[in-house]
Amino acid sequence: MGKVNLEDNDTKEKKTEFSLVRVKDTWKCKRGKKVTADNVSAAKIYESVTENSTSWTVVSPIVFTYKVTETRDLLEPSNQTLLLGHISDPQQLEDMKKSNKQIRRFLVVDQEVYKFYGPKLTEYLEANKVLYKILALPTTEENKSMTMALKILEEVNNFSLDRRTEPIIAIGGGVCLDIVGLAASLYRRRTPYIRVPTTLLSYIDASVGAKTGVNFANCKNKLGAYIPPAAAFLDLSFMQTVPRRHISNGLAEMLKTHGRMLLDTKFQADNRVYGRNCMQVASQATRIAIVNMLEELAPNLWEDDLNRLVDFGHLISPALEMKVLPSLLHGEAVNIDMSYMVYVSKERGLLTEEEKHRIINCMVGLELPVWHEAFTMELIQKSLQDRLKHSGGLVRMPLPVALGEAEISNDTSCEILHRAYVKWCDELSVSSDSNSDS
Amino acid sequence: MGKVNLEDNDTKEKKTEFSLVRVKDTWKCKRGKKVTADNVSAAKIYESVTENSTSWTVVSPIVFTYKVTETRDLLEPSNQTLLLGHISDPQQLEDMKKSNKQIRRFLVVDQEVYKFYGPKLTEYLEANKVLYKILALPTTEENKSMTMALKILEEVNNFSLDRRTEPIIAIGGGVCLDIVGLAASLYRRRTPYIRVPTTLLSYIDASVGAKTGVNFANCKNKLGAYIPPAAAFLDLSFMQTVPRRHISNGLAEMLKTHGRMLLDTKFQADNRVYGRNCMQVASQATRIAIVNMLEELAPNLWEDDLNRLVDFGHLISPALEMKVLPSLLHGEAVNIDMSYMVYVSKERGLLTEEEKHRIINCMVGLELPVWHEAFTMELIQKSLQDRLKHSGGLVRMPLPVALGEAEISNDTSCEILHRAYVKWCDELSVSSDSNSDS
Repeated sequence: MGKVNLEDNDTKEKKTEFSLVRVKDTWKCKRGKKVTADNVSAAKIYESVTENSTSWTVVSPIVFTYKVTETRDLLEPSNQTLLLGHISDPQQLEDMKKSNKQIRRFLVVDQEVYKFYGPKLTEYLEANKVLYKILALPTTEENKSMTMALKILEEVNNFSLDRRTEPIIAIGGGVCLDIVGLAASLYRRRTPYIRVPTTLLSYIDASVGAKTGVNFANCKNKLGAYIPPAAAFLDLSFMQTVPRRHISNGLAEMLKTHGRMLLDTKFQADNRVYGRNCMQVASQATRIAIVNMLEELAPNLWEDDLNRLVDFGHLISPALEMKVLPSLLHGEAVNIDMSYMVYVSKERGLLTEEEKHRIINCMVGLELPVWHEAFTMELIQKSLQDRLKHSGGLVRMPLPVALGEAEISNDTSCEILHRAYVKWCDELSVSSDSNSDS
Repeated sequence: MGKVNLEDNDTKEKKTEFSLVRVKDTWKCKRGKKVTADNVSAAKIYESVTENSTSWTVVSPIVFTYKVTETRDLLEPSNQTLLLGHISDPQQLEDMKKSNKQIRRFLVVDQEVYKFYGPKLTEYLEANKVLYKILALPTTEENKSMTMALKILEEVNNFSLDRRTEPIIAIGGGVCLDIVGLAASLYRRRTPYIRVPTTLLSYIDASVGAKTGVNFANCKNKLGAYIPPAAAFLDLSFMQTVPRRHISNGLAEMLKTHGRMLLDTKFQADNRVYGRNCMQVASQATRIAIVNMLEELAPNLWEDDLNRLVDFGHLISPALEMKVLPSLLHGEAVNIDMSYMVYVSKERGLLTEEEKHRIINCMVGLELPVWHEAFTMELIQKSLQDRLKHSGGLVRMPLPVALGEAEISNDTSCEILHRAYVKWCDELSVSSDSNSDS
């Protein structure tokens, strides 16, 4: 009987390291650590031979490159960003501009966004002589499913898309960007896609990272992929048509100073109350939010490191959001989660009473809910147990330790969680009632 | 109006390169090329600011590591490979063995394979005190769809799988490995999976690479992902129960010497005609095939380089296979494609008449079909046009130039294709009739 022993020290194991060198149209293994050749790959193969088994370990790096661009007047016919802004190679861009080949684009646009921007978008595409197909879909949280992804894929396939040169463009909120991202990532095993966020939340959140997804089995984003877009194009002018509640929703993921003014001006320049300076503040605020997100994401694109401060507000909120669907927006659910965590921090002595109040007041000022009746102790415990299981046995709870600072905690007791919960309900349940369906 | 100019030289562009350095629980941008710190990431962010836009280019490397292990007696209760062989870190393996935590595994097994190996597999899992769920499915080419992937995902979700420590195990042919690979890659955006190939074709092909997929809109593998398994465990003893036609099917992707003997002995040791040496030949042959595949795949895991010699036999065959489904096995369709390409090579003067005959005779000796009536000139032209479109404007046709050697060609004329086709039909259509449904 062949008995395979997995411990190196007990078996006569012969190990060989191979580099890979390009020879004519193919790659060949070359023995040894220090192979120097012009055409040597960054990939490696390690062979291990024992009496009963041969094993190859393949180490193959894939480099993701993607672009996040803040621009203005994205749908002005003279602005080429939407059509060519994803191309990084100057030579390729030059060739593209010179060639007479007609540009073809498949676009998925949220239905509500299409009502506002459909005519302008159509005008833009026609002015640029693009052969296009626009698919307008009701991309709500309730519709965020594989069914909708497959519907998109059928249309993509009918359009006979060329995945090398024709990125799929998604224009809408986070749900739209997530579904289209997943559909594109599946099509021919990877078709590039472009994100154009039209809500504040997707502007500073979904547009920046690599995550795509759909809901499944009543769980948020249970199916998805970690494939970043070729590019995300950000234009604050889309915020004009975002309802006030949805601006608050996005501010929950920012929670910066100037919040109130940004809420009132909807991130637009030249407001009659605040004057011309508000644009600078708006773009500064979004810029800080985006750079913070990029800093967290770039070194950990696939979330192999589970200690993520950006998970703040995302431990209990997914379950809350799904439980009360569609009554809470994503940012609102996140804010309720953060509000509770502020109380946990206070109970643990990481925040003072005054800091706690300042944070809660800031949230209330941004017209965000800070409490919800469906956010129960049972929901907290179930969510944290779930997280424990899927985070390698540690709860990795991001807790605020000062204004704008947080750290990861793994040792918050049940007692603290409970005490914080009681105080949180005592202090916020009444005041929040009026906020729950603003 | 904001006009965004994409050319660097016309605008005042300010470029900054950032490295990412770990500070407490978070990552921070540090300016400059040569940041040296203990905790610096391989990722980079490049910022570009012009008058009208700010743009960040994120470069983020992801390293895939996976293991391909040839072993024996995979289902012997004493062999721990199936349960622990994917763990590369010796410390983690040690901890795992010491801990008393019950091992949980979700397994998807092809229905036919389950008929043969179900009892042995169950015995193995029970002997190792595994808490398991086996899902036996008819994983045929006709069933290779998102519907089946979603069915698997529902069961995975019911099993309440921990994606950090409980890889999904797929046992079956290429279709089974492909569907399960896709389902796992989608679950929680990436759940590790293990491939156990039970057919010769999947042993040397599907088990080795990163591709997963399902058919869609009547196209082979139109939806899928490039996510390699955590590990592939290869055991030639599964070949015993593979029908002779399916051995031929796998040999099409190998086409090595000793073919006839390997077909007769089904890759098993100690055959009464061929004696004890056949095992050595069998494992040598599969080893060569696997190493060749790994050499081609490791440096090009996501097929960013489109010049792939392993595409030999894969230009026309996908359309052929789908057209006549289920009458041709994958390897059979591939062989018919290769047979035609041999004729193209001959017409181009890359092969001599004698070499051509040797290759065709080898195929016939392995009981592989070398011609098919559905492989028409129309199908050839349509497939090559499609390839042209999806391969960046070049057909990139791998053509054999000697026994065991090939190169990529982009300049084969229609006339040559046609002349080769006529000769191919003349010489092989009659002799192949009897092979078509052996």
